[in-house]
Amino acid sequence: MIATGLNASPGAATGRVAFTADRAREMKAENGLPVVLVRQETSPEDIEGMIVSSGILTSRGGMTSHAAVVARGMGRCCVAGVGAVHVDEKNKEFEVNGEIFKEGDWISLDGSTGKVYGQKVETQDATVSGDFGKLMAWADKYRALEVRANADNPRDAKVAYDFGAQGIGLCRTEHMFFEADRISAVREMIVAKNVEERTKALAKLLPMQREDFIGLYKEMKGYAVTIRYLDPPLHEFVPTDKDDIVALAKDMGLTYETLQKTIDELHETNPMLGHRGVRLSVTYPEIAKMQTQAVIEAAIAVNKEGMNVVPEIMIPLVGDIKELQYVKAVVVETADAIIKAAGVKLKYYVGTMIEIPRAALLADEIAKEAEFFSFGTNDLTQMTFGFSRDDAGKFLADYYGKKIFANDPFAHIDQLGVGKLMKMAVELGRQTRPDIKLGICGEHGGDPISVEFCHNIGLSYVSCSPFRVPIARLAAAHANIKNPR
Amino acid sequence: MIATGLNASPGAATGRVAFTADRAREMKAENGLPVVLVRQETSPEDIEGMIVSSGILTSRGGMTSHAAVVARGMGRCCVAGVGAVHVDEKNKEFEVNGEIFKEGDWISLDGSTGKVYGQKVETQDATVSGDFGKLMAWADKYRALEVRANADNPRDAKVAYDFGAQGIGLCRTEHMFFEADRISAVREMIVAKNVEERTKALAKLLPMQREDFIGLYKEMKGYAVTIRYLDPPLHEFVPTDKDDIVALAKDMGLTYETLQKTIDELHETNPMLGHRGVRLSVTYPEIAKMQTQAVIEAAIAVNKEGMNVVPEIMIPLVGDIKELQYVKAVVVETADAIIKAAGVKLKYYVGTMIEIPRAALLADEIAKEAEFFSFGTNDLTQMTFGFSRDDAGKFLADYYGKKIFANDPFAHIDQLGVGKLMKMAVELGRQTRPDIKLGICGEHGGDPISVEFCHNIGLSYVSCSPFRVPIARLAAAHANIKNPR
Repeated sequence: MIATGLNASPGAATGRVAFTADRAREMKAENGLPVVLVRQETSPEDIEGMIVSSGILTSRGGMTSHAAVVARGMGRCCVAGVGAVHVDEKNKEFEVNGEIFKEGDWISLDGSTGKVYGQKVETQDATVSGDFGKLMAWADKYRALEVRANADNPRDAKVAYDFGAQGIGLCRTEHMFFEADRISAVREMIVAKNVEERTKALAKLLPMQREDFIGLYKEMKGYAVTIRYLDPPLHEFVPTDKDDIVALAKDMGLTYETLQKTIDELHETNPMLGHRGVRLSVTYPEIAKMQTQAVIEAAIAVNKEGMNVVPEIMIPLVGDIKELQYVKAVVVETADAIIKAAGVKLKYYVGTMIEIPRAALLADEIAKEAEFFSFGTNDLTQMTFGFSRDDAGKFLADYYGKKIFANDPFAHIDQLGVGKLMKMAVELGRQTRPDIKLGICGEHGGDPISVEFCHNIGLSYVSCSPFRVPIARLAAAHANIKNPR
Repeated sequence: MIATGLNASPGAATGRVAFTADRAREMKAENGLPVVLVRQETSPEDIEGMIVSSGILTSRGGMTSHAAVVARGMGRCCVAGVGAVHVDEKNKEFEVNGEIFKEGDWISLDGSTGKVYGQKVETQDATVSGDFGKLMAWADKYRALEVRANADNPRDAKVAYDFGAQGIGLCRTEHMFFEADRISAVREMIVAKNVEERTKALAKLLPMQREDFIGLYKEMKGYAVTIRYLDPPLHEFVPTDKDDIVALAKDMGLTYETLQKTIDELHETNPMLGHRGVRLSVTYPEIAKMQTQAVIEAAIAVNKEGMNVVPEIMIPLVGDIKELQYVKAVVVETADAIIKAAGVKLKYYVGTMIEIPRAALLADEIAKEAEFFSFGTNDLTQMTFGFSRDDAGKFLADYYGKKIFANDPFAHIDQLGVGKLMKMAVELGRQTRPDIKLGICGEHGGDPISVEFCHNIGLSYVSCSPFRVPIARLAAAHANIKNPR
């Protein structure tokens, strides 16, 4: 063992050290030997490199750093914040306690303990079988909470299903938009000058999105699939670098100035508090319309093949009942017209995320329209504390050092504050709609302490990264043994 | 009358049109004739021009745009969002319904009605005398709420006092740091490499800050003065433009690279949710120490001259009792040592703003340390709704158009959501500390509808821009007549 860091994403990995995403891909392509990506911190540009790597080590960052969150989502092993490792990217080496490791050297990670080893260690794939299978079967017998997974594509859905997920609690549809064949249609939609142009661009996305949903429904074999409508601010889909903007303008047949102006207009001072979530559907209801069409047409298609899919449509970032009413009207009108035209019967639900403090405070009102709630505890934590996950890293170290915070509120639910809002929302929501389905789909859904809290406040399900499903099943069983429903 | 806009800041103004802050200053300096600044929108660089102008007209922006907020704070008349006015800054003219106005032409504004006139109109200074004085005296007889003002310097404090303010509810100390003779010491503090360097830079600010407070105390003649400790993220004190950074580096005897690196490190993705408020004092307790020294030494100095000042020290952005405990310990230790050394008696209070949802949710805990609460409803509105004042303008137009929102929650308190948190905080705070003083110092403190709400939930005082004090006095009287305490 050469160092320890944070057990940011479970599993074990062994591989040869690569210091950049590009090198990770090249090394993997050269001879197929496993690669461990070693970086100070990762950023969205590293995604491709993270995908090909067996594990990720970062010298900085905490449990909610980019590396940690993305790795958990992918089911990649990750050890984060290994302070003893000094990365020298230029010379392609890192130093740890006087020892130097160069590109291509073997190291191994244990993402469940945070340990880093300076050599090759044999690993084996995780499957739910043997003793593990038996333990999981016991857990399932005792738990009251349903366990779902967050999955954005059929590949992740399959992993989730194999690990025992009883549905998808969160499909982030925007992740489908970043793929090469879709991003250009998304960008056309963004630069559209009017509803007609925007509708035309969205029409290009429709068949792809429909296929996505067909794939998800099939992998989940009739289990619930909760589809969250477009959430991030639109500027996330356009480049920021001038050269990239020039190239994109050329591709799109626009002048650089026109495109730059559109991008400038999308700029936000505080994107986390900006034009995103349901606010996008209020401004551009045609997006909700296209997404509804894809959800419903996909369900009709698979149900014709003998399945019995009941889609759950989830509107993000709602803070006022009228926002939900406005978008739900678009959804219901679109869905019912398609169902009627197809001459079939199809049940579907329209619900909302509870991730804005105001939504929790007014949950009795919101439950008049929402047929289910799913707590988005990442955003709810950000808004309740008034600090963002991206920026808090800078001062939270002082908070731990000075014993102001004992825990990272992005790793374990802050039961006193955020939890108080959740309890209010549960009580208020049930007052209006006693049988309302209540879940959680934030990162906390895979954290055992938070799972216990969710059990205790009476949620119906937790939803987490596919690889955390087994631990959530076990935590749910522990919670119900300790405090039976 | 040539157009109407939003009555963004009350009062009347007449003057010659200027299209830039620089021209406003030059024109005013040339012959002393009054100037009206006409712009699409204003930004912080326009401040100097706004100060010399008698009124401000913007063609864009709402009740909480930069122009509107700053104008209210200054007591400058402002008509905002005059859509019919098309500003052509390059040609120094604006067009309104086919008529052209050029630089130097006379126009007049009525900030109480939003009306814009195409010629010179005689105006007179507002004073609380005659019938107005009588009306205000009646109001004072009937109201239960105390009315304070938000003032950051002796000049504003004098206006506030003359308009009948019974204290300062919010002195934003950072506004004192932007003046030319202070900003360089602030920047030294920011680039300091360790506590010693930081303390040295802060020592330069101490005498200036102490004089500020002496001036405020004197103007308020013994009324309460609430001093909020440094609040904004530090990057607000450093330039962003490369040329400015090069020049500053030279001034400070640093290399450009060093300074640029420091500035880069201060960058935040969501500054509203970043390293600000109490978080600064947790990281750099020496800031709280210097500010305490200034507050206490100033109070001792004026009390020696026969006054009886009781300073109220207000810690912003608290979300957890331990944050407040940590900073309060620094404050109390510093203050008590100075008081002891001076051999005097001095009472002072340490309280907090309630502007983070979590602070409202846990107000019973926080009241164990906080001797008063002041609701910061600007931030509380932002966090409760999950949208920022700076960015919401882009989509709120759709919200009004589609009847999702009837009101701008930054103009009138959102009684259902934000108000629910406020009521919780009032009840919880009083459970712990029955005699806790409760105020509001957000923009809403000068809005009659919000003043009525504050009366109804049992606050002790409202604090607003100096020029809004009379309207707050009247609104407080109306509220108490309608619903007597």
